[in-house]
Amino acid sequence: MQTIRVETPSARYDVFVGSGLLRSLAPRIERIAGRLPRRIFVLTSPEIWALWGKALSESFPEPPLALFLPAGEKHKNLVNVEKMARQMIAAGGDRSSLLIAFGGGIVGDVGGFLAAIFMRGIRYVQVPTTFLAQVDSSVGGKTGVNLPEGKNLIGSFHHPLAVFADIGVLGTLPDRELRSGLMESIKAGIIRDRTLVRFMEEHVDDVLRRDPKALEKVIAASVRMKADVVNRDERESGLRMILNFGHTLGHAIEQVTRYKALLHGEAVGWGMIAALHLAKKRGTISSRQGERLESLVYLYGPLPPLKLRPGKLVAASGSDKKNTGGVRRFVLPVGIGDAGVVEDVTPAELESAAAYMLARAAERHA
Amino acid sequence: MQTIRVETPSARYDVFVGSGLLRSLAPRIERIAGRLPRRIFVLTSPEIWALWGKALSESFPEPPLALFLPAGEKHKNLVNVEKMARQMIAAGGDRSSLLIAFGGGIVGDVGGFLAAIFMRGIRYVQVPTTFLAQVDSSVGGKTGVNLPEGKNLIGSFHHPLAVFADIGVLGTLPDRELRSGLMESIKAGIIRDRTLVRFMEEHVDDVLRRDPKALEKVIAASVRMKADVVNRDERESGLRMILNFGHTLGHAIEQVTRYKALLHGEAVGWGMIAALHLAKKRGTISSRQGERLESLVYLYGPLPPLKLRPGKLVAASGSDKKNTGGVRRFVLPVGIGDAGVVEDVTPAELESAAAYMLARAAERHA
Ligand SMILES: NC(=O)c1ccc[n+]([C@@H]2O[C@H](COP(=O)([O-])OP(=O)(O)OC[C@H]3O[C@@H](n4cnc5c(N)ncnc54)[C@H](O)[C@@H]3O)[C@@H](O)[C@H]2O)c1
Ligand SMILES: NC(=O)c1ccc[n+]([C@@H]2O[C@H](COP(=O)([O-])OP(=O)(O)OC[C@H]3O[C@@H](n4cnc5c(N)ncnc54)[C@H](O)[C@@H]3O)[C@@H](O)[C@H]2O)c1
Ligand SMILES: [Zn+2]
Ligand SMILES: [Zn+2]
Repeated sequence: MQTIRVETPSARYDVFVGSGLLRSLAPRIERIAGRLPRRIFVLTSPEIWALWGKALSESFPEPPLALFLPAGEKHKNLVNVEKMARQMIAAGGDRSSLLIAFGGGIVGDVGGFLAAIFMRGIRYVQVPTTFLAQVDSSVGGKTGVNLPEGKNLIGSFHHPLAVFADIGVLGTLPDRELRSGLMESIKAGIIRDRTLVRFMEEHVDDVLRRDPKALEKVIAASVRMKADVVNRDERESGLRMILNFGHTLGHAIEQVTRYKALLHGEAVGWGMIAALHLAKKRGTISSRQGERLESLVYLYGPLPPLKLRPGKLVAASGSDKKNTGGVRRFVLPVGIGDAGVVEDVTPAELESAAAYMLARAAERHA
Repeated sequence: MQTIRVETPSARYDVFVGSGLLRSLAPRIERIAGRLPRRIFVLTSPEIWALWGKALSESFPEPPLALFLPAGEKHKNLVNVEKMARQMIAAGGDRSSLLIAFGGGIVGDVGGFLAAIFMRGIRYVQVPTTFLAQVDSSVGGKTGVNLPEGKNLIGSFHHPLAVFADIGVLGTLPDRELRSGLMESIKAGIIRDRTLVRFMEEHVDDVLRRDPKALEKVIAASVRMKADVVNRDERESGLRMILNFGHTLGHAIEQVTRYKALLHGEAVGWGMIAALHLAKKRGTISSRQGERLESLVYLYGPLPPLKLRPGKLVAASGSDKKNTGGVRRFVLPVGIGDAGVVEDVTPAELESAAAYMLARAAERHA
């Protein structure tokens, strides 16, 4: 097991990465919270609960009360948050209650937000069950739900008491979800951890067949990277921006395909291909580095095909909410393991990067 | 004008109390926020906007965009928060936008909550227009909405950039609202400011005919008391509890009458009568002090009649969400200008206090 410390101005907590965490959850929470609260709720999806509910409940004197959120982005909304808050009240929930967010990134975001606003904030823990949630969404305190107008437009910063990333639960994760999540680890390596890049290059097979040691290594390194960035910039005023590497065009792809054709990590995979091209052109990475990193993305591929027009992507990227005041911020890798933010990327450069990416996509799916 | 500083671990801001603040709002916000943001929203009710919208807009280069919340507790809900968030997105709102909560406590609570969760938190200012909102709800950072199961069960702590309490807007406030709000000032005096008690005793007429000097004095003193308590106990772990003086039975009355027969301050007025009786019985105040304070409540009355059974009130007070873990916390004044929290009040004591209060109510409305 590895333990990574998150330490921001507003919170201090640990992220535990390892095997067997799920079955020993109650004593672990007890150690952190002092004692188990009278009422414990677990927000999860019916599918995850069917697979892993028994394992999670095992260590509790009485099983936590399950609140169910159906899978899928369209259920990540305020109506469901209200519904679950009412269930909590009906079951005697109060300010001392604890919530466990047990699922992928959607469950984590909704659960964290519910905990943030239930009686003005109760304690919660994250028990992420997708690779993406383990390496990314469960760490950093961002919580929220969607509006019809866009994703994550409503939310809070609310840190968990702890994050328990159990490698074992990844056993039932569909291959495509795993590969998609791994794109965030590649991102982590590229922007801040060249050792992780090297490890992922050398252990593709171990990782993809879910060898626990290999997974623990990749997850812990990814979490360490994110925690490090969040510790220095909790509220995304500067440094935290680099976590958006691959995401400007990634988000544009998701938007244009209406979040239907690709998983988030897959879109980010393509977005990184584009950003690497732009970085090569600008000389912040060499051609050799660019090719090496591009290959790494494909090693963890297969990325789904992309049939779009570059202009459309560029237009969509302009509406990325992360760009405030009209300035288009763009993250570029600097060598391997470092990155910076530039604000002078022109639409033409973006379009050429998008065209490059689309050509690679066409090639690979010819 | 008087300026009261709020200074908690998570925020520092000023509460301005005085005349003419409304018409000079824009430059005042500009001074605090650096410059006026591109998009400024004002959450208000149609009635308040009709009365005071022009005065508020006057000082802005372009008028802020109004979002309307109909008056009444039943509109203080998540559905309306979502509706207004969508309007903000449609109008180009982003993370740099600013919200002005312009109305009574309902508008303040909903506006603060909307600001707390819109894109994970934007800046806002409070411009309270009821006496209650000026002395109480706009200060302290508590925001929220109701669930069908109860009041303020959903919310956040989110402090404003500043509070502008303009005495002038109180000119259109119905007399009953004014008197109701004044109960919170009486509360402030009793638990923490004997000078305020004295002033309110000596200036009943000035206050009730809304003499600006007298109002400024009472409002500023009340805000100072609340700010002082909030500064020491932002999250209501201990001291802040004393703000609930008169509220245990006050809430019970509101609940039993379904928030329909009495305004909040009126219920608190009766709740204080009961609590003063209990305090006399316990000897934390003398009989003379008790009578003096009871008279003060009636001076600012008229409190509406109460036809209830004491047992019902005691039962309702048990479900007060402020009581965690089954312990019934009760605030008792200690002399005039001090208060403490006790946890050993018996149902019998509560019932006798409720009976005393109901007898007084019957007497006064015979
Ligand atoms: N808060 C943040 O900082 C942050 C960061 C990145 C992404 N996100 C959010 O995360 C969400 C995406 O998360 P995600 O990729 O985990 O998707 P997800 O939550 O939709 O989970 C993907 C699918 O896998 C299933 N699943 C989960 N765990 C499983 C398991 N162990 N075995 C079998 N099936 C399992 C789920 O039921 C679901 O169908 C998005 O809403 C995104 O906005 C948040
Ligand atoms: N956040 C806190 O710390 C806190 C503390 C106490 C109360 N509250 C909340 O405050 C709310 C009650 O606030 P309230 O008493 O201000 O009631 P309110 O907001 O309902 O306003 C009372 C009425 O007065 C009208 N009004 C407001 N200003 C006016 C003006 N200047 N002229 C004419 N009419 C005017 C309103 O339209 C409304 O009809 C409750 O929801 C309560 O939960 C919050
Ligand atoms: Zn991502
Ligand atoms: Zn009150």
